[in-house]
Amino acid sequence: MSRWQPNARGRLEQAALELYAERGFDQTTVAEIAERAGLTERTFFRHFADKREVLFWGQDALIELVTTCIADAPRSASPIDAVGDALRAFGTMFQGRREHARRRQAVIAANPGLQERELIKLASLAAAMAEELGRRGGPEPATKLTAETAVAVFKVAFERWLSATRDTELAHVIGDSLDELKALTAGT
Amino acid sequence: MSRWQPNARGRLEQAALELYAERGFDQTTVAEIAERAGLTERTFFRHFADKREVLFWGQDALIELVTTCIADAPRSASPIDAVGDALRAFGTMFQGRREHARRRQAVIAANPGLQERELIKLASLAAAMAEELGRRGGPEPATKLTAETAVAVFKVAFERWLSATRDTELAHVIGDSLDELKALTAGT
Repeated sequence: MSRWQPNARGRLEQAALELYAERGFDQTTVAEIAERAGLTERTFFRHFADKREVLFWGQDALIELVTTCIADAPRSASPIDAVGDALRAFGTMFQGRREHARRRQAVIAANPGLQERELIKLASLAAAMAEELGRRGGPEPATKLTAETAVAVFKVAFERWLSATRDTELAHVIGDSLDELKALTAGT
Repeated sequence: MSRWQPNARGRLEQAALELYAERGFDQTTVAEIAERAGLTERTFFRHFADKREVLFWGQDALIELVTTCIADAPRSASPIDAVGDALRAFGTMFQGRREHARRRQAVIAANPGLQERELIKLASLAAAMAEELGRRGGPEPATKLTAETAVAVFKVAFERWLSATRDTELAHVIGDSLDELKALTAGT
């Protein structure tokens, strides 16, 4: 048997989500995930450090993509538009992945420990965005406020996208939510 | 000895913060906190369920005050101004408590488990504010966006207030941060 398995990572992720939904996250073992995917535990651990990482491996990619987009934004872009564009760029990575994202969210919603992990992920994202806005030369208090606000918009947009009945793109929902925030805070 | 101890709660809180700062949160026991406060463990448990609650007992009061303020806001107030006023009202409760808040924050910053608890507290606050805005008749997506944004402002304002070198009121910093958010999102 070849050590390389076609799309092992995707198969493990799919099997894990199925099992977490069926039995609960805490009740699922790595052995069961590997078996459901038709792979070995050893293969599992070549792709993921543990069963929690199956749900959170995208975090580093998220932070890297978003901070790179902020760094590449034109100097003329306002901080809020620079982060808005970065989050929209990230949103495009979810094209065709809504069903997957919904299943992942249902698993997280059922487990307080995973919810905490998700909150920490969003806090890390805000900190990374604030740092990158600071590198662009923004004054420190404004960069933090922009970054925390952007994460608030992202969080709400993500929930809206998951619960929307019609087929829609996450990037669009993020853009709409940002426009809505501007309307909410304008002229009051 | 009378069962009632003058300001037992405040003395326990003070003793706990000192010990958490000196030894770390995990290394401190309830017995040590009671001893430092000159009280018994039994008295401790009449006031706090456990040593973590010493840091988080204010959460319910925070949520109740903020949601009551939102409920009492004039019908003409926009959602963002209703939550802004509610957070400012909460801020006045911190008058003269900055040194205490700084010590508490230092303890939390040194312990990942406590940081998670703090993030959950803020997420609960956002959920409670969104629900109360919904009762005022706001459409669901806008109420969530307003509440999450308000928590972002509160988080940044609280950090600013703690790190400010000059003496300042939390309520003012919250007001200034909200104005700044309006400026950041305007005209872009």
